[in-house]
Amino acid sequence: LAWTDALLEFWFEFASTYSYPVAMGLEERVASAGIEVKWKPFLLGPLFAKQGWTDSPFNLYPAKGAYMWRDLERICHDANLEWRRPSRFPQSGLLAARIAYANEAEEWVASFVRAIFVANFAREQDISDPSIVMECVSPFVSDPRAILDGAQLPATKDGLRARTADAENLGIFGSPSFVVEGELFWGGDRLEQAIRRATRHVD
Amino acid sequence: LAWTDALLEFWFEFASTYSYPVAMGLEERVASAGIEVKWKPFLLGPLFAKQGWTDSPFNLYPAKGAYMWRDLERICHDANLEWRRPSRFPQSGLLAARIAYANEAEEWVASFVRAIFVANFAREQDISDPSIVMECVSPFVSDPRAILDGAQLPATKDGLRARTADAENLGIFGSPSFVVEGELFWGGDRLEQAIRRATRHVD
Repeated sequence: LAWTDALLEFWFEFASTYSYPVAMGLEERVASAGIEVKWKPFLLGPLFAKQGWTDSPFNLYPAKGAYMWRDLERICHDANLEWRRPSRFPQSGLLAARIAYANEAEEWVASFVRAIFVANFAREQDISDPSIVMECVSPFVSDPRAILDGAQLPATKDGLRARTADAENLGIFGSPSFVVEGELFWGGDRLEQAIRRATRHVD
Repeated sequence: LAWTDALLEFWFEFASTYSYPVAMGLEERVASAGIEVKWKPFLLGPLFAKQGWTDSPFNLYPAKGAYMWRDLERICHDANLEWRRPSRFPQSGLLAARIAYANEAEEWVASFVRAIFVANFAREQDISDPSIVMECVSPFVSDPRAILDGAQLPATKDGLRARTADAENLGIFGSPSFVVEGELFWGGDRLEQAIRRATRHVD
């Protein structure tokens, strides 16, 4: 059986609006396709900074930003997803990304990722606030304080930095991105293509 | 019968890579949905310039550009469309846009638009060269020279400038864009959404 060969990497940044609907529906979507997902948190800020952007392009380019907010509203409506435009954008997803990175082999990581995205884009909560992050991780672990402490370990910080360098080396420049056998797909509307690619050796 | 109410505007710039596959498949796609298309050529350059870009963002941001070329190759492959990466990008579509604008009520305009896109993205021809543009318009009119002369009329030039201002006022910032009842959709992957919007009052 070749099922285990079908692998899709989901590269995401917690501040990313378009990553929210993808994160919410991804597990269900790939399960029906028989694909394994690797959740790959990374930081978009450093990659944007290298392009000369010190803010989200959606803030830097107002017409594009206005469209994005409307587009996202439509996407969430079509997907029956709660959606509330956050009053502060972008938020810092650094702490959440460190936790997701340090625990990405854990079964609960996908649930944690979704909880953070919901906090950011459905509940208007501050995802840089450790108490909010604690609430998001608490349902899944016995010692949430230890998880937050683990986020501050040098190995975690260095690891997430290396992960972000990996993203750049893969040619990633935005979130959500999907990587299948080194092939890059950018944007939620490329998920189906990425899935086709991941499964074509499976059929 | 409400069929005549279903109207979709296709806003496009001839230099735009992602507009090529859309232009090629649009008529067939909307015909099966019972929708009327208005072809709306405009110029993206002046809108980019207002954002501080003096070149295509695909050139300004190399990672994004590298991805776009690969993505477009995949899209054209999936759509069975000829595709050759042009050695010069972006090309000036000004002359072609003026002709499309001045003749947008003519039945042949869609065929002309496709011919220019094919010249740019399948044949590596110079679409700013009047002789190439002449070849693209010749199959459809008895006096192609008159069509090229018409492109230089002040009314045509002013009209295309006003069209570009209209694009900006609609919130357009890229090509391809679709507008249905004032609602903006950006990117070929939003065509289905735009079609659903155009047809929901038709059902």
